[in-house]
Amino acid sequence: MVNTEQITFYTHIYSPYSQRVHIALEQAKADYTPYTLNVLDKPDWYAAKVNPAGKIPAITYGGPKVSPDTPSDESVKLAESAVILEFLADLFPDAGLLPADPVARARARFFLTVVDTKGFEGFREFIFLGHAMAPLIDGYAALQALLPPAGGFALGGDALTIADMAFAPFLARTYLLLSVDLGKFPAGEGKKAYAILTSPRFARLQQYLQDVKANPYWKATWDEDTQLAMWFTNPVFRRK
Amino acid sequence: MVNTEQITFYTHIYSPYSQRVHIALEQAKADYTPYTLNVLDKPDWYAAKVNPAGKIPAITYGGPKVSPDTPSDESVKLAESAVILEFLADLFPDAGLLPADPVARARARFFLTVVDTKGFEGFREFIFLGHAMAPLIDGYAALQALLPPAGGFALGGDALTIADMAFAPFLARTYLLLSVDLGKFPAGEGKKAYAILTSPRFARLQQYLQDVKANPYWKATWDEDTQLAMWFTNPVFRRK
Ligand SMILES: N[C@@H](CCC(=O)N[C@@H](CS)C(=O)NCC(=O)O)C(=O)O
Ligand SMILES: N[C@@H](CCC(=O)N[C@@H](CS)C(=O)NCC(=O)O)C(=O)O
Repeated sequence: MVNTEQITFYTHIYSPYSQRVHIALEQAKADYTPYTLNVLDKPDWYAAKVNPAGKIPAITYGGPKVSPDTPSDESVKLAESAVILEFLADLFPDAGLLPADPVARARARFFLTVVDTKGFEGFREFIFLGHAMAPLIDGYAALQALLPPAGGFALGGDALTIADMAFAPFLARTYLLLSVDLGKFPAGEGKKAYAILTSPRFARLQQYLQDVKANPYWKATWDEDTQLAMWFTNPVFRRK
Repeated sequence: MVNTEQITFYTHIYSPYSQRVHIALEQAKADYTPYTLNVLDKPDWYAAKVNPAGKIPAITYGGPKVSPDTPSDESVKLAESAVILEFLADLFPDAGLLPADPVARARARFFLTVVDTKGFEGFREFIFLGHAMAPLIDGYAALQALLPPAGGFALGGDALTIADMAFAPFLARTYLLLSVDLGKFPAGEGKKAYAILTSPRFARLQQYLQDVKANPYWKATWDEDTQLAMWFTNPVFRRK
């Protein structure tokens, strides 16, 4: 069932948090208008009218259909990727973003919490700040341990839930960036981390990523060549 | 409607995260067994059988009715206060922990996110680490700004939702501790912060806390004299 209220989605392909919401919108088959925000030079209307924190993702919901760069005062504005994922799960209860069983829902939310704490910290520390590698490896070890050993996505099924939508954008960027040694770490450290994450110790995680990449809603939100080209020219990582 | 599966709740009155769950269990009129965990000397079975992270709160759900100190392998174990709050909201849909409307649910979750980031960081920095006061004041200013100006709890109603359950335990401890200058900050700094938080600038926040303290489910989980006695003898804050 499609939404009757308009949804405008503020995003940028570099942003893993935004991709979370993008996958959810695709899986829900929502009727939405995407708008790529220039994050390096944000327009003033964005913080003023959409998200005071200035971050992506954000969505507007309801109100009149307007151009994304002139948001209406009548729409609801929502920020924070996890909040938006839950919102979409509520709005599209049949899209499988969250299962119906309270215990399974709690497992999805717990998984998401680990992604946003241990998982994200390791990613940020190593790739964005160039600090130690250990938290990255530890974070992925903890997340791999939460995956069902027998296979399937985070909750064991063959469809994505908000747990996977939250996790996979970080996981895919990690493997992609490390494979080409791209990040704030000293040259060569990325390849070392990549060797660990592609070793048998992380076989379950590799299988998981492969399964994610075969998912149609993931595919609708990720193009490996475009990602690679973008990260190579990203000013955050530009080396002397 | 009462739960048919058993719920065991691992808690300690000092813990604001645990009080969140306590208020929710009370408001849901859940049938549950509380167990006070000795956090200063945690029994081995706790991390082994209940929460590998060793933290409170945690709950066990389902399985046979057993003594809390010999948890059954058959029960579901849940950790992380926000995850447990959502779980209880799912389990007791008529208890008002979350409203039914997706937008209102998103507002509650956004509020909770601000409590757990900006709100908690300010609390921790100043009261638990003795660092600068500014993040505490800024955090409470941001949270006050999210409260409905006209009155009521976080979502504007006169019943607590998970937004309030998440927030109030930190807020009440803040006012209590600062009023007696108790924390890691230099002597006198707590009273200074208290003067700010009791000034007209924070009138809405004070009204909010007063409303919380009049709520029956809050009252069932908080005793000011016991709290005060406990914090004065808490080894974390003991001064030379
Ligand atoms: N906790 C937020 C984080 C959002 C976030 O950090 N977004 C980044 C892009 S991935 C951003 O907007 N950065 C630009 C900025 O902060 O100016 C969420 O889950 O949505
Ligand atoms: N993010 C967790 C935090 C839980 C937490 O930090 N609990 C504290 C008490 S308030 C604790 O168990 N501390 C003891 C320890 O870490 O050993 C939640 O929301 O439940």
